Amino acid sequence: MTYQTLSVEVDGDGIATLTLDRPDALNAFDVTMARELERFFLTDARSDDVRAVVVTGSGRAFCAGMDLSAEGNVFGLDESQQPTPETLRERFDDPAYADGIRDTGGRVTLAIHALPKPVIAALNGPAVGIGATMTLAMDIRLASTRARIGFVFGRLGIVPEACSSWFLPRIVGIQQALEWVYAAEVLTAQEAYDGRLVRSLHEPDDLLPAALELARSFVVGRSPVALGLAKQLLYRNSAAADPLEAHLSDSLAMFYTSIGDGKEGVAAFLEKRPPSFTGTASELPRVFP
Amino acid sequence: MTYQTLSVEVDGDGIATLTLDRPDALNAFDVTMARELERFFLTDARSDDVRAVVVTGSGRAFCAGMDLSAEGNVFGLDESQQPTPETLRERFDDPAYADGIRDTGGRVTLAIHALPKPVIAALNGPAVGIGATMTLAMDIRLASTRARIGFVFGRLGIVPEACSSWFLPRIVGIQQALEWVYAAEVLTAQEAYDGRLVRSLHEPDDLLPAALELARSFVVGRSPVALGLAKQLLYRNSAAADPLEAHLSDSLAMFYTSIGDGKEGVAAFLEKRPPSFTGTASELPRVFP
Amino acid sequence: MTYQTLSVEVDGDGIATLTLDRPDALNAFDVTMARELERFFLTDARSDDVRAVVVTGSGRAFCAGMDLSAEGNVFGLDESQQPTPETLRERFDDPAYADGIRDTGGRVTLAIHALPKPVIAALNGPAVGIGATMTLAMDIRLASTRARIGFVFGRLGIVPEACSSWFLPRIVGIQQALEWVYAAEVLTAQEAYDGRLVRSLHEPDDLLPAALELARSFVVGRSPVALGLAKQLLYRNSAAADPLEAHLSDSLAMFYTSIGDGKEGVAAFLEKRPPSFTGTASELPRVFP
Repeated sequence: MTYQTLSVEVDGDGIATLTLDRPDALNAFDVTMARELERFFLTDARSDDVRAVVVTGSGRAFCAGMDLSAEGNVFGLDESQQPTPETLRERFDDPAYADGIRDTGGRVTLAIHALPKPVIAALNGPAVGIGATMTLAMDIRLASTRARIGFVFGRLGIVPEACSSWFLPRIVGIQQALEWVYAAEVLTAQEAYDGRLVRSLHEPDDLLPAALELARSFVVGRSPVALGLAKQLLYRNSAAADPLEAHLSDSLAMFYTSIGDGKEGVAAFLEKRPPSFTGTASELPRVFP
Repeated sequence: MTYQTLSVEVDGDGIATLTLDRPDALNAFDVTMARELERFFLTDARSDDVRAVVVTGSGRAFCAGMDLSAEGNVFGLDESQQPTPETLRERFDDPAYADGIRDTGGRVTLAIHALPKPVIAALNGPAVGIGATMTLAMDIRLASTRARIGFVFGRLGIVPEACSSWFLPRIVGIQQALEWVYAAEVLTAQEAYDGRLVRSLHEPDDLLPAALELARSFVVGRSPVALGLAKQLLYRNSAAADPLEAHLSDSLAMFYTSIGDGKEGVAAFLEKRPPSFTGTASELPRVFP
Repeated sequence: MTYQTLSVEVDGDGIATLTLDRPDALNAFDVTMARELERFFLTDARSDDVRAVVVTGSGRAFCAGMDLSAEGNVFGLDESQQPTPETLRERFDDPAYADGIRDTGGRVTLAIHALPKPVIAALNGPAVGIGATMTLAMDIRLASTRARIGFVFGRLGIVPEACSSWFLPRIVGIQQALEWVYAAEVLTAQEAYDGRLVRSLHEPDDLLPAALELARSFVVGRSPVALGLAKQLLYRNSAAADPLEAHLSDSLAMFYTSIGDGKEGVAAFLEKRPPSFTGTASELPRVFP
């Protein structure tokens, strides 16, 4: 795993630390970083050697947002295009749409969301614009007291992106989401904590150790299959129209884990010993239509 | 904009203060008020001169609920009708249904919800029944310490209306929503704040200034197009089945704002000057199928 | 109502206290308890003599989870089955699927969810596994300071079941739900309260009286029809794609309650006397397609 804009370390427990690594540019998000984040989450992090991911920033920022220093049209759009909801669906994978019309941040957050493993954001400093919205697709957010979070799109005349309108209300409720997006201010770490966006605050030096410890508590002695399915079930059924949908998918997930890692898990529990699971996240059973 | 039951003032920043203005009746909701609220939100507030709306009550109440002083059938229903889910959908716009079977409160909250501009409730006093549920379709609720909020339908043998079953769980979570509706008590301002229904509490004299200041922070130096689309994205995608739906709609919203007000926004940011946006909320691009 | 694993008492106000009653086994959940809970919620509790249900445990536990003491395949599954999302839907009621593939806990929580009456959990002690997830389908959770709650599935190599992936994020938000499920720890009562899973904490001796008092406040002087419809509206519309869906169903619910118990409710309110409702939960009008 070699990257221009990222650095990755995987420890012996399978915890990958992914560092946004353009410290001189406050880890600003550019096209290279976008492509590398997609590759990491869609391909490299799928390796069964990776059990969970902690994402942080190099230097004093987490991610200062879209790199606006590029000359010309910073969003890389062909303005003569006049896409509609219908053409976007039809031409979804057409490169002119996939690499132009489709929001780059959303391609990254969909990749993060699709990884069936815990992903934790360790917000070490300012996270602004896409630097803020990319963390919404991560499962849990920890913050340093030096973190700052800004959904500042309204000041720039643009909208919150990266599927943030799907994630943010699920994390903080619709009233808080609307206020933060309307106000477009940069929040302190305490404000983000009080609004339930971040799960806990930490002294700067304690942040990464806390995030790694949390990640470790999720994977040591746990079944990667059970964890991956649980992530899929929670996100998908949180948005299902009826609990019957959950009954169908969790019945299947329960069936396959019960005849798989669940046998070892129950045996180990009854024998009062640690389990030794053999299932892998790369081979999850299909539980949704 | 002249009304019998409302008064409206629009200031130089485009902040409209809408006052429920039947103080001798504690601003009780009657058919005239319902029609005037629909007209305000569907038509008058659509003017590009209006950038945000603050709703409050005249005198000591916000809104005491449905005016039950009318003689006879207070709900104006033709009891011989036996509507079903199927006939209601078929005859949705038929006047016998639209003005009879369809809930009047819901017509008002759908109108509030459809306005692509921030709407803030300034709860100056008791808000009961439809006086409580109409505020749920407003984006953010501020309350005076003298406010009282009552989802009292259960005491009257009727159900919570005005689409409140859609809005309330999104604001306060399903457990709190169920308890408040089952209990049918009148909540104090503090209880409403603790339950996350209202965003902040204020001394009575400070309420309206605080609401106006919040509204102003949402519109001065902001793009009406970006704000209107952000409201649509947050509500609609908070209820979408999959983040992919958000990716499709926010990609389009990002495309159109990026070649519109976003150009000025980014230029102003790079030049460290206030932006001068030219887009209008009356001409939002279509981003949903 | 006679059961092997449950005991039920109904008081003069129609409050049923349902006690999980295998104290020597810490009220562990077995096939008999599952069938009896389904029967109670789908049949016995439908009686109009029952207005609300409080669920608690006998002895020191609420429910220690699935009874793993049974020999062999504790989940009762035919491992040669290879169900898919498609076959599960097709064969939903086929006994081999209904009593085998389909999750037993989910059959119970769907039965709880379908009862159009308030259901309150009084968590008197440890609630683990299905003992924890079954409470998510109850409307409101109160806990003794001695309660412990464990979504411990990850430790056993299995997934959270009983439709918990539908309920839990609606109660505590997606971030908290993911952390608890990933961590698979047993939470203290205080942690469950801080995370908004339980509505209030009580000294052990005060728990059941508090739960009964809350249930009583929901039913005395209230219309069973209004309450039953309100429960259906809140759950169903909390998951609806658009407030228009709520407008359609709450309009119908309002119509039928307005020409039913609502007449008595409004008359009693205007005459300043207690209402005397005659509608019954066993005859709710149909308000959903």
